[in-house]
Amino acid sequence: MSLDVTFLGTGAAFPSPSRGASALVLRRAGQCWLFDCGEGTQTQLMKSHLRAAKITKIFITHLHGDHIFGLPGLLCTLSLQRSPDASVAPIDIYGPLGLRSFLWRSLELSHSEPLLPYSVHELVPTQDQCPDGEFRDFSGLDRGEALAQAPPGTVVHLDPETDSYLLLEDEELSVRAFRLFHRVPSFGFVMEEKPRPGKLKVHILQELGVPPGPLYGELKRGRAVELSSGARVLPRDVLSLPVPGRKVCVLGDCSGPVGPGALRLCGQADLLVHEATLADGLQDAARQRGHSTPGQAARFAAECRARRLVLTHFSQRYPPGGHRHRRLQSQAKTATAGHQVTLAEDLMTIEIPVKNKDEDFATTELPVKQ
Amino acid sequence: MSLDVTFLGTGAAFPSPSRGASALVLRRAGQCWLFDCGEGTQTQLMKSHLRAAKITKIFITHLHGDHIFGLPGLLCTLSLQRSPDASVAPIDIYGPLGLRSFLWRSLELSHSEPLLPYSVHELVPTQDQCPDGEFRDFSGLDRGEALAQAPPGTVVHLDPETDSYLLLEDEELSVRAFRLFHRVPSFGFVMEEKPRPGKLKVHILQELGVPPGPLYGELKRGRAVELSSGARVLPRDVLSLPVPGRKVCVLGDCSGPVGPGALRLCGQADLLVHEATLADGLQDAARQRGHSTPGQAARFAAECRARRLVLTHFSQRYPPGGHRHRRLQSQAKTATAGHQVTLAEDLMTIEIPVKNKDEDFATTELPVKQ
Repeated sequence: MSLDVTFLGTGAAFPSPSRGASALVLRRAGQCWLFDCGEGTQTQLMKSHLRAAKITKIFITHLHGDHIFGLPGLLCTLSLQRSPDASVAPIDIYGPLGLRSFLWRSLELSHSEPLLPYSVHELVPTQDQCPDGEFRDFSGLDRGEALAQAPPGTVVHLDPETDSYLLLEDEELSVRAFRLFHRVPSFGFVMEEKPRPGKLKVHILQELGVPPGPLYGELKRGRAVELSSGARVLPRDVLSLPVPGRKVCVLGDCSGPVGPGALRLCGQADLLVHEATLADGLQDAARQRGHSTPGQAARFAAECRARRLVLTHFSQRYPPGGHRHRRLQSQAKTATAGHQVTLAEDLMTIEIPVKNKDEDFATTELPVKQ
Repeated sequence: MSLDVTFLGTGAAFPSPSRGASALVLRRAGQCWLFDCGEGTQTQLMKSHLRAAKITKIFITHLHGDHIFGLPGLLCTLSLQRSPDASVAPIDIYGPLGLRSFLWRSLELSHSEPLLPYSVHELVPTQDQCPDGEFRDFSGLDRGEALAQAPPGTVVHLDPETDSYLLLEDEELSVRAFRLFHRVPSFGFVMEEKPRPGKLKVHILQELGVPPGPLYGELKRGRAVELSSGARVLPRDVLSLPVPGRKVCVLGDCSGPVGPGALRLCGQADLLVHEATLADGLQDAARQRGHSTPGQAARFAAECRARRLVLTHFSQRYPPGGHRHRRLQSQAKTATAGHQVTLAEDLMTIEIPVKNKDEDFATTELPVKQ
């Protein structure tokens, strides 16, 4: 099953002709999931090979304008493209508390009532996700008032045991969020596929005398079966190795993680998307603004033993191809010491191939550095 | 004094790579005034020869997303570009009631506190500016609550005598708004220069024995003076003809005007910017959606004897250069019967030259057709 990531906007702070504001699409099984939606995202989508109508889920890392100001317009445009009588599943939108009010207010005041249904699932941040005194509590915002007419929403609290937010889980995959430190509370998201069971080795089944039918299904689902002869057949005897799942992590703006959740969840990521707003010579400025440099991103990637690191969210002072951009590139290569690292550009697509069956499973239980 | 209009976005409903969402800049004496600010306007500005930092006033015709969703981002970016200690005049933003709440909510929820001061002047629409039952009253919105912390704002009511809203007036020019009919209340804006006094004819002043000094100033200001000889000198005796002012009218989305204000104010406009969302074969669809066709726009331009008509806000089904676009062009030429008509494209600039001194003054008192 194909899995790829397309960067729609790789610039920080504001969109420019050379770097759009933050947005990327994770595409899997024909569905598109959008991560962040800066101003101009819908135009970038039109320039790409992706179809906006395939977006079924949207994840917002934090509420800064360069990550959300494209969202009301995108919803309006998606709404125009849908036929009014089509029965469609709602678009699920996940992001920090306050997102539902932002969307509702923007759509209400602009007289835009999207025909497409959507739900907003708001993550409740903790106060240590931003500098002292800068935390704003949006929990009481509009409650009981205008928002009562707004589309449905749920509120998701931190699970203190796993230090994460479970956003969705089905037979094939799960998505969790974890906490990051930024000027405003920021989040990262992990999409993790579950391992797919290996194929049945039919010649062995025949040798063992397992009759084709329901027993095949039981074995495929990982359950031992007993034959009429009384013999017991174990799944591992008749199944090839399972296909390990892939893990993609997308971090919002940050100068680092908050709590152990980030490292736990990102362990052995197949693709880790991390911001690198400023060059390594500007660590102090980066930290002060809640941002990272290529060196910091590489350290985080090394700690979680990520297989591939992609840097994005570059200050507009680093347009692609310029000499400053080349310096960033060489810093990234040095910092990752030969590991795979890529500097994202607008409209770049990166494929995450299916893993070999004999690869180790990714573990989410990496030891956390103190 | 140079005066020109640059179209930043000429598309309807949503931005696309070939036509940005609605925005244009009127530039005069180095200052830029922005009319509408659809998503992506700041990127279009960067592609143009204009400097966003020169924007001192913003006019919003109506609250549909394709006219306002670029405004929060633009304010944030302008704010980033200003040095925090610079003492700057606030940006004045004019638009329909509800605009202040939209801006404040967007900036508050995105944790964006622009360093640049701004004021919002809200025009109170009348219920007949949109279809029955679709009018929404935003007059009570947020009053006394969150908006109390918001930037200052004023509320401007219709002057029933002139059927217009006086927005600003100084020695050089005035700006007024007038009512239009659309799916939501929409406005048009008229910038009208006052005539500039003619030059002093120095050789005649010398012949008449007027001593250089304060008397010259009095005459230039249009006041008669008395010489020590007892002779009286009239301004018209010593001044060349005044230079007539120019008039630029920018209409928001509409299927037509509401009340006599529009025709009165747009009389003999030097440049009339009118929407033409759909082609002439689609009048009914256009009217139903509160929009116009080239033919309708041409009729309005003829009624107000506009010197030059520019059409904009085209449905994205008419990308520049396509065969449908050429059909629109020929409809526009036919409808204006040889008069000057232009179909706007993104980043097109149109200059409005200084008028000849012997041209008629523009009058705002054209007879209104019943």
